[in-house]
Amino acid sequence: MISKKAQNIAPYTAGEQPQGGGYIKLNTNENAYPPSPQIKEYLAGADISNLRLYPDPANVKLRTAIAAAHGVGVENVFVGNGSDEVLALAFLTLFERTGGSVVFADVTYSFYKVYAELYDLPYKEVALDGEYRVRVGDYVNDERRMTNDELRSGVSGIVLANPNAPTSVLLERGGIEKILTANKDIPVIVDEAYIDFAGEGSSCVPLINKYKNLVVVKTFSKSHSLAGARVGYAIAGKPLIDALFKIKDCFNSYPLDKISADISAIAIADKGYYQGIRDKVVATRDRVATALRGMNCTVLPSSANFLFVSVAGYTGAQIYEYLKDQKILVRTWNKPRISDFVRITIGTDAEMDKLLEVWKKFCK
Amino acid sequence: MISKKAQNIAPYTAGEQPQGGGYIKLNTNENAYPPSPQIKEYLAGADISNLRLYPDPANVKLRTAIAAAHGVGVENVFVGNGSDEVLALAFLTLFERTGGSVVFADVTYSFYKVYAELYDLPYKEVALDGEYRVRVGDYVNDERRMTNDELRSGVSGIVLANPNAPTSVLLERGGIEKILTANKDIPVIVDEAYIDFAGEGSSCVPLINKYKNLVVVKTFSKSHSLAGARVGYAIAGKPLIDALFKIKDCFNSYPLDKISADISAIAIADKGYYQGIRDKVVATRDRVATALRGMNCTVLPSSANFLFVSVAGYTGAQIYEYLKDQKILVRTWNKPRISDFVRITIGTDAEMDKLLEVWKKFCK
Repeated sequence: MISKKAQNIAPYTAGEQPQGGGYIKLNTNENAYPPSPQIKEYLAGADISNLRLYPDPANVKLRTAIAAAHGVGVENVFVGNGSDEVLALAFLTLFERTGGSVVFADVTYSFYKVYAELYDLPYKEVALDGEYRVRVGDYVNDERRMTNDELRSGVSGIVLANPNAPTSVLLERGGIEKILTANKDIPVIVDEAYIDFAGEGSSCVPLINKYKNLVVVKTFSKSHSLAGARVGYAIAGKPLIDALFKIKDCFNSYPLDKISADISAIAIADKGYYQGIRDKVVATRDRVATALRGMNCTVLPSSANFLFVSVAGYTGAQIYEYLKDQKILVRTWNKPRISDFVRITIGTDAEMDKLLEVWKKFCK
Repeated sequence: MISKKAQNIAPYTAGEQPQGGGYIKLNTNENAYPPSPQIKEYLAGADISNLRLYPDPANVKLRTAIAAAHGVGVENVFVGNGSDEVLALAFLTLFERTGGSVVFADVTYSFYKVYAELYDLPYKEVALDGEYRVRVGDYVNDERRMTNDELRSGVSGIVLANPNAPTSVLLERGGIEKILTANKDIPVIVDEAYIDFAGEGSSCVPLINKYKNLVVVKTFSKSHSLAGARVGYAIAGKPLIDALFKIKDCFNSYPLDKISADISAIAIADKGYYQGIRDKVVATRDRVATALRGMNCTVLPSSANFLFVSVAGYTGAQIYEYLKDQKILVRTWNKPRISDFVRITIGTDAEMDKLLEVWKKFCK
C-alpha cells in the first residue's frame, strides 16, 4: 500500500536536533545570535483572532519587504516554506523528466539529488576540483570537460550552491556569469543560503534582469537567525516566478503561516541589527579558521557561517565522535571525497573558544 | 525554461482573501471565532532566541499532543504544513503512476484532481447520487457500478472527503467501513477537515487499528480556528505514517515552524474552549439552514461549518454577485452539477443575521 517511490527512495538526512543534552550545537549552521529584537515586540502584541483566517496566498506584504531589501520588483519574488520547499518546487517547475540532465557538483547540498530522485529527473554530478572549487569550464558549452556520453545526452538545468555547502567555498560572481551566458536557454538555480556571509558583490541577485535563466534562492534560516520560522524565497525574472507560483498553487495554496510571514518581513527590514551580528559571525569565523590552521588542520577558505575542516590521520567520523564526547556537536558525512572532513558551524565567541580548547587536546 | 507540467497544469484556485474592503467573509470556511486564548499568553512570553534554531524535524511535542487528544500512539501521527501539504504528500506516498486509478467523487474538494495531475497519477471521478451523497456501492468491488472499462483498469486508491466539500454532506461511518472492508489492499484517504462539526461517532480515527489501509487526514484550520497557522495531520497505522515521513524527508525536513507547532499543541489540548465554539457554530448553522429553507431555498443537509445552497431560477454566480454587492463574500463554482449553488461559511450570529436580512430581499 506504499508507492514504489516511497519504498525505494533514500531521503535527505538533516543534522541532529537534540532536545536537551547540553550540547554546544555547531552542526546545522544555525546563526549564533538571536533574531531581531523587534520580533519579540510583534509577538507580544499579536492579534491572535487573525489566526482564524487564511493568510494572503500571494504573500504580498512579505514579498514587498523582500523586494525592497533587494531592490527588485514584487513580481520578482517567490516565497516558500523554507528554501528547501522553494528548491523542491523549483526543480518541479524548471526541469524536465526527459531530454537532458540536471547538473550539480559531486560535493554539494545533498538535497539536490533527493529532489531529482523524488521527481524522476535525470541528473549528473560534476566533480569539483582538487580544492573543492567549481570548475567553470565544466558548465560552459564550448569547453565542457564532461565525457562524450554526457555531452550527447545534454544538460537541462544547472544547480549551484554559492557559497557551496558543505565546503564553504565561494565561486566568484564572474564565474557564475560565464555559466549563465553559456547556458542562456537552460535554467540555472543559484542557491545563496550562505551568501550574506560572503561579502559585498557576491550575490547574483543584481543579475536577474540581465539573465532570464537565473533563479536565486535565499533563506531566512541562516543570516537572519530564523531557522525556526521556515521561510525561504526565490528571486528571478517574472516568467519564472509566475511559473513557481503556478506549481505552488498545485501543491499548497498557503505555504507560509501568518506569524512566520510577519516576522520575516520585520527581520529583513532591520538591516542594522543583522549587519551587526553578521560582522560578528564573520570575525569569529576568520579568527577560528586562523587558529585551526595554526594547529595544522586543513580549513577550506570559508565564505559562509561554517568551516570545513580536516585533520591528517583522522576521519571526519573520528573527529565528530571525539567532539561529541566533549559535548560539542558538529557534522560529518560518510561519503566519497568528504569523509575526512567535519563541518563546524560558527557559534558565539565563547562557544568557539570552548571548541578550540577541546581541539587543542585532540591535535596535540 | 519552464517545464511542460508547469506550462500545462491547471492549479487549484483558493477562495478570495481580500485585504480590507469591509466584507463579511463567508467564503473560505474559516471559523467564526478566534483560537484558544491560551495562544495569546504563549506568544506574549515566547523566547524568540529559540527561533534561530531549526525545529524538531520529527515534531514529537505536537504529535504527542495530537495523539493524546485522539487516543492513538505518537507513531500513528504525521504532521504537515496544512492538510493540503499532508494530502499532497499522501498522494505521492500511497498512489502509483501505473496500475490503476485513484478514485474520488465528481463533486468533492477540487485539489484532489490537481494533486493527481501534479504527480501524473491516473484518476477517475465517480458521480455522487442525485442528492450529492456518496453511493457506497460504487466503491465496493462486488457491486461496483462503474463501467466495464473502469473496472478493467482497476482502482489503486480511494479519496473521500467526509463531510464532503463543497456539499457539506456526511457519509455515515458504517458506509466508510464497507468501503474499507471491500478494498483491504488499497489505500483509502478519508479527509476529515470538517468532521468536528459532524457530531460524535462520525470520525474514522477509531478505525485505524482495524483497517491498515485507512489514512485519516485532519486540520487545525477549521474547528481549531488556526487557518493562519498552517498545520494539518494524518492518523494511520505505523507503516503508512513511516512512509509519509520518508517522502516528507525527500521534500522538506522541517515543514512546520516552531510557533505554529507550539500553538497547535496548545490548541488541541484546550478541549473545553473548542467544544464551546463548535457548539455555537453548529447551533448557528442549524438555525440559518432552517431559515433559508423557510425561504424556499435548497439547503443540503450539513455536517460541516458551511451550507451548500441553491435558489430556483438563479445561478450560483448570480447569487454570489448579489451578495458581493451587499459586502458579503460567499463561494461559487463554474462547474457541472454545482454551478447553481453557493457555499456559505457559518459566521457569527450577527454576520448570519445580516446574511438572512440581505437574502430576504433577494428571495422575495
